Amino acid sequence: MNTPLIQAPAREMLMLLEGLAAFSAPGPGVTRLLYTPEWLQAQQFLQERMAGMGLAVRTDRVGNVYGRLGGSQPDSKVILTGSHIDTVLNGGKYDGAYGIAAAMTALNYLQQTFGQPLRTLEVVSFSEEEGSRFPLTFWGSGHVTGLYDGSEAETAADSEGVTIKSAMEACGLSSEHPLGDLRDLGDHKAVAAGQTAARTDIGAFVELHIEQGIVLEQSALQIGVVQAIAGQRRFTVKVGGTANHAGTTPMLHRRDALAGAAEMLLELERSAVEAGDPLVATSGRLEVYPGTSNVIPGDVQFTLDIRHSEAKRLESFCSGVMAGFEDIAARRGLTLEVVRTLSTAPAPMDQGLSRTLEQICLSQGRTFRTMISGAGHDAQLFASGCRTAMIFVPSRAGISHSPDEYSSLEELAAGLDVLTAMLYELAYKES
Amino acid sequence: MNTPLIQAPAREMLMLLEGLAAFSAPGPGVTRLLYTPEWLQAQQFLQERMAGMGLAVRTDRVGNVYGRLGGSQPDSKVILTGSHIDTVLNGGKYDGAYGIAAAMTALNYLQQTFGQPLRTLEVVSFSEEEGSRFPLTFWGSGHVTGLYDGSEAETAADSEGVTIKSAMEACGLSSEHPLGDLRDLGDHKAVAAGQTAARTDIGAFVELHIEQGIVLEQSALQIGVVQAIAGQRRFTVKVGGTANHAGTTPMLHRRDALAGAAEMLLELERSAVEAGDPLVATSGRLEVYPGTSNVIPGDVQFTLDIRHSEAKRLESFCSGVMAGFEDIAARRGLTLEVVRTLSTAPAPMDQGLSRTLEQICLSQGRTFRTMISGAGHDAQLFASGCRTAMIFVPSRAGISHSPDEYSSLEELAAGLDVLTAMLYELAYKES
Repeated sequence: MNTPLIQAPAREMLMLLEGLAAFSAPGPGVTRLLYTPEWLQAQQFLQERMAGMGLAVRTDRVGNVYGRLGGSQPDSKVILTGSHIDTVLNGGKYDGAYGIAAAMTALNYLQQTFGQPLRTLEVVSFSEEEGSRFPLTFWGSGHVTGLYDGSEAETAADSEGVTIKSAMEACGLSSEHPLGDLRDLGDHKAVAAGQTAARTDIGAFVELHIEQGIVLEQSALQIGVVQAIAGQRRFTVKVGGTANHAGTTPMLHRRDALAGAAEMLLELERSAVEAGDPLVATSGRLEVYPGTSNVIPGDVQFTLDIRHSEAKRLESFCSGVMAGFEDIAARRGLTLEVVRTLSTAPAPMDQGLSRTLEQICLSQGRTFRTMISGAGHDAQLFASGCRTAMIFVPSRAGISHSPDEYSSLEELAAGLDVLTAMLYELAYKES
Repeated sequence: MNTPLIQAPAREMLMLLEGLAAFSAPGPGVTRLLYTPEWLQAQQFLQERMAGMGLAVRTDRVGNVYGRLGGSQPDSKVILTGSHIDTVLNGGKYDGAYGIAAAMTALNYLQQTFGQPLRTLEVVSFSEEEGSRFPLTFWGSGHVTGLYDGSEAETAADSEGVTIKSAMEACGLSSEHPLGDLRDLGDHKAVAAGQTAARTDIGAFVELHIEQGIVLEQSALQIGVVQAIAGQRRFTVKVGGTANHAGTTPMLHRRDALAGAAEMLLELERSAVEAGDPLVATSGRLEVYPGTSNVIPGDVQFTLDIRHSEAKRLESFCSGVMAGFEDIAARRGLTLEVVRTLSTAPAPMDQGLSRTLEQICLSQGRTFRTMISGAGHDAQLFASGCRTAMIFVPSRAGISHSPDEYSSLEELAAGLDVLTAMLYELAYKES
């Protein structure tokens, strides 16, 4: 590999991160929900900074912000990099924001160090990924990739009944002005004003993100090269028994829905451990009815969240678990009702790009490993349409979606350098 | 056994039961909470009916209603029989009320058929047993037996903040007039006006009650002769793990509080089945925190309700379960906190009286069995102070504390005849 030494300015990136963290609703950590005043101010802040770096800035109809560094080969497809600007309620300052701040810093460094690229580079700050305000995740990247067509804005509403459409209008986003200051751009027709279909001009997408898990920390490694983003299945399971008097019903005459659910949850755990990494299976919510200390539970409802990077194994694990649940219910005389509430396919990352990332780590002397992302990311929406790569840095104690989310400057800087070298490979090297 | 044929008028008892059921707050089933207008009307209705039967009627300072049939041996102790007039929210018409209606019918029949007894007979309608309005169970029988001294009335309040004291005053019960129409009585000094200490004049207590369980129905028997009322231990168990991302935390790096709780509940069930009847163990309430489908549970809290008729076995079972929970928590790296919230001792019924009941069943041609009461009853408060007996009749499908509570007239009549014969044995036979 013939890549120049990359030493991108990590402190510049950190100041962008700290600057973004200031745009938050009151309360612990960072709360920056879609189309709120703090969200709008954050996106405006980024537009100013991108413009200050000499990037051509625009927004699209859902408020994604782009900063563009035009390439000398105008017919080449765009190299896109970035992440999402929204947070969960009382989240941290790294989830999403790190990928944007690092991408901006990388583009600025590359332009200043190496001048105009061959292929156009764009940094993107996606408007939304978390689904924390409206019941739609990936609202930003979903518009770029065609998951959404905009019609959802009329009906989807937040917990106070505000539709996405009216929240967008409050931020100055409307169908009459679907793209912000597109006039600044003018060098690429694929992103023409009024664009409503998915972008077809993207040749590669690279996302840098904190791991949000403990794998890198526990193995004391700097970089995770993501091989795939796990597919997810979510279910709601209802177990029905007979509510009865806790004192007068002998043990052998019970149809205890909670005892049955407990056996199912233990079986789930046993099967998941047996299946091995990267399979994970979780029941995060469980409710008991009637929920009185001296009444045998008549009904229990619990959720399942099951993830794997390979579609076939995810499918067969889920089938096996459900068969096991049916056996337990039948043996105990309980009713069982399973509803699938979510199903996303695993998203494999591009193998060539992953190998390039590994070579960059070797040439920079970074410790690294390949891994699966159990969490969902914007990158998973790009994987089927263009070459896609994803880079992880460690999260302290694996904590995320919390004010305690933290990665050190050294860890963040390592990821920045790997991303910058990757963008150099993609945009500056003759293919 | 030399007992005359007893054929007490079951329809008279049924009309009393139906009459009582009419005193209810609106809604399904019967709702007659302590010191409400419907409760007061029900107790006044009983006083009228008792007076109509020629019984000497009085109330005490907590609103227990007594109907007295004085014996010819004034120095003999009182034979007391009855149950409680209050219900749970949306309860049935048999729980408690049956024991009162049958006792009144029995006394009336005995007086009409056999005249004055040797020993004084009293029927009691206890003001409260369920603990449905105020956080004190056995408020009625607890005053007669010394569990309460009345000071609780100042502080204990219902969910709307009304203290027992002010609720009592609204029913005309006050410290100035602690005993209602005691003047009607005048033949027994132990229940003198102003009585605040427990009664010491009671020689035996007999309670007739629906089983509230499925044992008699499943064995197709008419009468249950209660050998003991089970002791109860209740606990709140808190299991602490680490809340973490459901997608990014490998199975072997989890401290899942819900998986740990599930293992504990299965172990509880296994141990209880192994211990065998009459041990019962139930977890009726369980809560998961944070309770989000994609977050590994960090904390779980659940209740335990464990009952047995023998104090030593109850104690050793609870110790064994707790030791098992500690092992599970230690192996999983979870914290465990157990708080005992209730402990009542088992109450053995009088063996001589139980044998008399069995002989009555044999002489009346009733099918019967001895059994343990898993539910608590007023009788358990008398067991340590006087000879106490308890009679069960079947409950359809074991349903109780529900508008669906039901026992047939035939079943109720069998219990009435056994109770009547028992009272004849205790009050009319030369000892």
